[in-house]
Amino acid sequence: MSNAARMPSPDLFFDTASGYVRTEVLRTAVELDLFSAIAAGRQTVPELARHCESAEKGIRVLCDYLVVAGFLLKQQGRYMLTPDSATFLDRKSPAYLGGVLTFLHTPTLRQGYANLTAAVRKGGTAVSADGLMKVENTDWVQFARSMVPMMAMPAQLTAQLIDRPADAKLKVLDIAAGHGLFGIEVAKRFADAQVTGLDWPNVLEVAQENAQRAGVAQRYRTIAGDAFEVELGEGYDVVLIPNFLHHFSAQRCGELLRKVHRALEPDGIALAVEFIPDEERVSPPFPAMFALAMLVATAQGEAYTWSQLDAMFKGAGFSRNTMHALPPSAEHAVVARK
Amino acid sequence: MSNAARMPSPDLFFDTASGYVRTEVLRTAVELDLFSAIAAGRQTVPELARHCESAEKGIRVLCDYLVVAGFLLKQQGRYMLTPDSATFLDRKSPAYLGGVLTFLHTPTLRQGYANLTAAVRKGGTAVSADGLMKVENTDWVQFARSMVPMMAMPAQLTAQLIDRPADAKLKVLDIAAGHGLFGIEVAKRFADAQVTGLDWPNVLEVAQENAQRAGVAQRYRTIAGDAFEVELGEGYDVVLIPNFLHHFSAQRCGELLRKVHRALEPDGIALAVEFIPDEERVSPPFPAMFALAMLVATAQGEAYTWSQLDAMFKGAGFSRNTMHALPPSAEHAVVARK
Repeated sequence: MSNAARMPSPDLFFDTASGYVRTEVLRTAVELDLFSAIAAGRQTVPELARHCESAEKGIRVLCDYLVVAGFLLKQQGRYMLTPDSATFLDRKSPAYLGGVLTFLHTPTLRQGYANLTAAVRKGGTAVSADGLMKVENTDWVQFARSMVPMMAMPAQLTAQLIDRPADAKLKVLDIAAGHGLFGIEVAKRFADAQVTGLDWPNVLEVAQENAQRAGVAQRYRTIAGDAFEVELGEGYDVVLIPNFLHHFSAQRCGELLRKVHRALEPDGIALAVEFIPDEERVSPPFPAMFALAMLVATAQGEAYTWSQLDAMFKGAGFSRNTMHALPPSAEHAVVARK
Repeated sequence: MSNAARMPSPDLFFDTASGYVRTEVLRTAVELDLFSAIAAGRQTVPELARHCESAEKGIRVLCDYLVVAGFLLKQQGRYMLTPDSATFLDRKSPAYLGGVLTFLHTPTLRQGYANLTAAVRKGGTAVSADGLMKVENTDWVQFARSMVPMMAMPAQLTAQLIDRPADAKLKVLDIAAGHGLFGIEVAKRFADAQVTGLDWPNVLEVAQENAQRAGVAQRYRTIAGDAFEVELGEGYDVVLIPNFLHHFSAQRCGELLRKVHRALEPDGIALAVEFIPDEERVSPPFPAMFALAMLVATAQGEAYTWSQLDAMFKGAGFSRNTMHALPPSAEHAVVARK
């Protein structure tokens, strides 16, 4: 503990106490599309104020804060984007992430965190009986649309875990498809694969748009409904379960996995994608922190460790389960064989 | 720019986007008095859940997040305080800071930040005509009570800037005294000093309590009211103006400083305490970021640079102004002579 060598410091306390301020600053800059304006060459306070229809003082204070927070650079009174901001916050960049804020700051989640004390007391979401997990919740449409730039690479890496020849006639099911990218990447890799996306109807529209854009729409079908309720069909070679299990209790996950097991061919595989913390649950940072999001947003969701996931799949009849990193994403894929 | 050498990373974006989550986690831990419970030897999830009247799952997820966020350590399933948390977050510690959250997260400020986009467009607070600056606002009583542990050291250092013999019969005015510590430290250093604290009546009660506690109550008087409106009196050797000017426009500050100038003896000094950013306004971090707090909470407040403060004092008749660091605080004192 290098801490022992120095005076106690309140820096972390104050930094954390004002964490919400940084969030609001980023949100406001994205709302005003300030980063795109700077990328387009507006670099001074008067130019930016005019473009963003704001007061010069407001823009100056906002931009200076963004410099301190690491999003902008300032030289001789002119603001410039950092390389990261140019990649992720200029609306013209293909990796633009600004839209993700709409999902990350959706009222359901914000309300969940505002009621965090109640969630800790209760051991689950304090917002409603089951938080985000409702068909009428349109947050998932937002999510499906805004996560595309982040999910393309993990989806590609996940598709590469399917150990079949390129001309295999795969029958694939994508459970809670969302943006659909995981299934779509399988369709792109296997030219004869038939992919069925399962999700709520309003979310499936996004998956279908993305299948169209990827040129695989003619091999993309859909099942609308709740994965726990609907008929999955049968004879699948691959069932994808990306970012789904963490919303539910281990028991509910087990029910779904048994259903998936029945829907698979004898040599089929289930392919889940999850944030998997180490057994001690405090590393790596993102998967470890993800457990909190599930606490505030779901009744019984969890960031499951590898030993929990392995037990869950084994309990459902899968005999050989392996975990695979998907760098640079903080998620892992789980490949489970019958 | 070491950035050029690496792949673009969305880490800062996601870290900042979830800054508000860290804030809520800290707030909840303080609300549940979790840190004090750990300090008192409750180190396991079941012990802490029982003590904090919470679900075991809630406590486990909260504590794991606090480990990732740097407030706790975890070894073999037991949680421990870091040295910083032991100093600042155990309610039994004299340096306990948990109470500061009540002020930092006061609804007025939170509402101000929630309306940050509107404040940027307008160039000042979007919450009310003048945000926090209202006599009926009880936030300042909270602030006065909770800031004592943080303010003791800067107040001592400020008192040491008064270059008079220890037995000088100083007549001292403390404008917007708040907790009263700046005036009280002068009274402690100069045994014959008479100190008058000026503030709103409800805040003055806190200053008087602190004067009592410091054993200087018999040399502590008060003037209740608004510093811009009331008679200050005259013949002062020292007028303290701690953390006050930043709430107002340069013009309003000038009016107050002229009033202070008239109230001082010919060899008297004004002693202001301020967050003073460098002329480029993007360093040091805390004073640079402080400008945003003034944007959201006041109509025309500002984190003034040294050249602005010097001009302000000179315009009010002060001829020799100097700036003094108050480490480890991020504030500076300004000594202004007639």
